Amino acid sequence: MKDNSHNRIVRFHRLGDASVLEIEQLPVTEPEEGELRIRVQAIGLNRAEIMFRTGTYLEQPELPSRLGYEAAGIVEALGAGVTEFAIGDRVSTIPAFSQGKYGVYGETAIVPASAGAHYPENLSATEGTAIWMQYLTAYGGLVNVGHLQQGAVLLVTAASSSVGVAAIQMGKMLGAVVIATTRSAKKRDFLLSTGADHVITTEEEGLVASVMKQTSGRGFDLAFDPIGGTMLATLGEAAAAGATIIEYGALATEPATYPLFAALAKSLTIRGYVLFEITTNPQILAEAKEFIYTGLKSKKLTPVIDRVFPFDEIASAHRHM
Amino acid sequence: MKDNSHNRIVRFHRLGDASVLEIEQLPVTEPEEGELRIRVQAIGLNRAEIMFRTGTYLEQPELPSRLGYEAAGIVEALGAGVTEFAIGDRVSTIPAFSQGKYGVYGETAIVPASAGAHYPENLSATEGTAIWMQYLTAYGGLVNVGHLQQGAVLLVTAASSSVGVAAIQMGKMLGAVVIATTRSAKKRDFLLSTGADHVITTEEEGLVASVMKQTSGRGFDLAFDPIGGTMLATLGEAAAAGATIIEYGALATEPATYPLFAALAKSLTIRGYVLFEITTNPQILAEAKEFIYTGLKSKKLTPVIDRVFPFDEIASAHRHM
Repeated sequence: MKDNSHNRIVRFHRLGDASVLEIEQLPVTEPEEGELRIRVQAIGLNRAEIMFRTGTYLEQPELPSRLGYEAAGIVEALGAGVTEFAIGDRVSTIPAFSQGKYGVYGETAIVPASAGAHYPENLSATEGTAIWMQYLTAYGGLVNVGHLQQGAVLLVTAASSSVGVAAIQMGKMLGAVVIATTRSAKKRDFLLSTGADHVITTEEEGLVASVMKQTSGRGFDLAFDPIGGTMLATLGEAAAAGATIIEYGALATEPATYPLFAALAKSLTIRGYVLFEITTNPQILAEAKEFIYTGLKSKKLTPVIDRVFPFDEIASAHRHM
Repeated sequence: MKDNSHNRIVRFHRLGDASVLEIEQLPVTEPEEGELRIRVQAIGLNRAEIMFRTGTYLEQPELPSRLGYEAAGIVEALGAGVTEFAIGDRVSTIPAFSQGKYGVYGETAIVPASAGAHYPENLSATEGTAIWMQYLTAYGGLVNVGHLQQGAVLLVTAASSSVGVAAIQMGKMLGAVVIATTRSAKKRDFLLSTGADHVITTEEEGLVASVMKQTSGRGFDLAFDPIGGTMLATLGEAAAAGATIIEYGALATEPATYPLFAALAKSLTIRGYVLFEITTNPQILAEAKEFIYTGLKSKKLTPVIDRVFPFDEIASAHRHM
C-alpha cells in the first residue's frame, strides 16, 4: 500500500560533492498562505544548486537542507489566498525563492504562488523545467540591463551553459549578431546549431583578435559573461566604444581585474547582474514571461535538454554537470 | 618697439618634470577655417597637462609640443566661417581639442570656435579659466552618466581636486547629500566650505565604515572617483544596492580590482568616463553649458582659485600642482 503521507525529498546533511545528496522519506506538508504544492513530474538542474550544495552560493544552506530551483508538475494543493492557479494546472517554477526553504528536488514541492508559472502546451514537463532560470536570466541581462539593439554585436562567453544557449537564442530573437565563446572545439557545432553566428574556441584562438576580425575591428556592443577573473580584462580589450559588459557569475577562481584604461578610453559600462533583479520586480517579471512565452510558441526559443536522469540518480545527474 | 609678429608660447621638447617647460618666442599665426585666436589673459592648469608633459595622458605629444586646455581672454582674430564670436568678445576655452595641436599656454592661443565659450560677466578672466574642465567633467559624470537624483547620496573621492570641488558644488545644486573624501585632515575645513555635507579623511577613518555610518548602513548611490586601484574594491563595499561607480581617472598606480561579489550582490554599475564624451556631443555640451551658466550666475557654482602665478613662472605653477 502506498503511503500518501510521506514522499521522497532530496536533502544534504553536510556540504560537499554530489555524494552528499540523500533521498529521504519525509512527510508531505501543506502549503501555507500564498503557496502551492506541486506533484513534481520533472526537475531541472542548475549550477546554482551545485554551488549551494558546496556552500559557495549567495545563499548559505541551513543543514540539513533541501535544494533545487526548477520543477514542472501539476498543482495538487493551494494555500490560502491563491487565486491564480487551480488544482490540476500544469506549472513550472521560476527561481524566485530561497532554495533552502523551498528546494524543489522531490516528488512534491511547495513554492510561493508568485514563483509558479503556466508554460506553453507544446512543451513537455521536462522542457518545462528548462525555461525560466535560463531565459529569465538571459532576458534580464540582454533586454533589461543590456538594452540589446537589433544589429548590435552580442558576445556570449561560456556559451554552452544553459544560460549561454538561452542568451544565444534570445540574442538572435532580438536581431543581434551573436558571437559565442567556448573553450574547446568540442562544442562548436552544438553552438552553431543553437543559432550563434560565430563561435570562438578560446583554447585555439585569441578572443580579442577573433572578435575584432568578426566585427571589422569595432568590437562587441554587449558581452554577457559568467566568468569574471582575467576574462574581464580580455573583454575590456574586445569591447567597442560605449559597450556594456554584464557580469553574471564568478566561474573564474582568480580575482577579476577591472580594465580601467579600456574603460576610460571606451566609456565602458560593467554591470553586475543576478536573476533576482528580475524575479523580484513584478512588472519586469511579467514582461519577461510574456516575451519568453512568445519566443517559446514561435520556437525562436527552444529549450535544449542535455540528458534526462531517473529521480533515484540525482547524485549521478549532479556529477554529470 | 614691441614685435607683434611674435609672442611667448610654452612648449616642451622632451617628456619629464616641470623643468622641461620652456617659454619660447614663436610667430603669431592666423586662425584657419572654424578657428579663433584669443589674446590670452589667464590660463588654468589641469592634471591632464601634467600627465601630457610626462607622457602618461591619453594623447601622446609630438615633440616639441604645446600644451594646455584652459585659457580666458579676448577674441582677436576669426578664421573663415566663424559667426558665433566677434573680435573683442570675452571667451574662455572648453577642453574639446588636441592639447598638442592647440595647447593654450601662451600669450595667444588658437582654438576651434566650437571650443570657445562666453562666460558670465560676474567672473574674472582668472575665474573664467576655472570653469569648463571641472564643471563639464562633473556635469557629464553626475548628470549624464550618473543621473544623480535629489536626495541621493553622492560620494566624491579625491575631493580636493578642482573636479572634486566642482562635483561637490554640483551635487549640492542637484539636491544630493554629498560625502567627500580626502586623505588627511588638512583639507577638511576647505571641503566643508565648498558645501560637502560630510568629509571622510581616509588616513584617519575607514571609508566603508564612515559611509555606512553617514547613510544608516545603506551606502552611497553614486560615487565619482578618479583614483581606481584598490579604491575600487573599497567603493564596492561602501555602495548601496543598485549604485553606480564612475571611474574618471587613474591616480592609483596599482591595478584596479573589480569587486565582482559586491557587484553581483548589489547589481553595481561601474562606468569609465572621460570629459570628451560630453565635449564631442554638441547637444549634451549645449545642455551642460546652460546648466553651468545658471549655476555660475546663481553662485551655486563658484570657481575656487588655489593660487595665481605670473606667466613666467609656469614651471613653478606646475610644481605647485
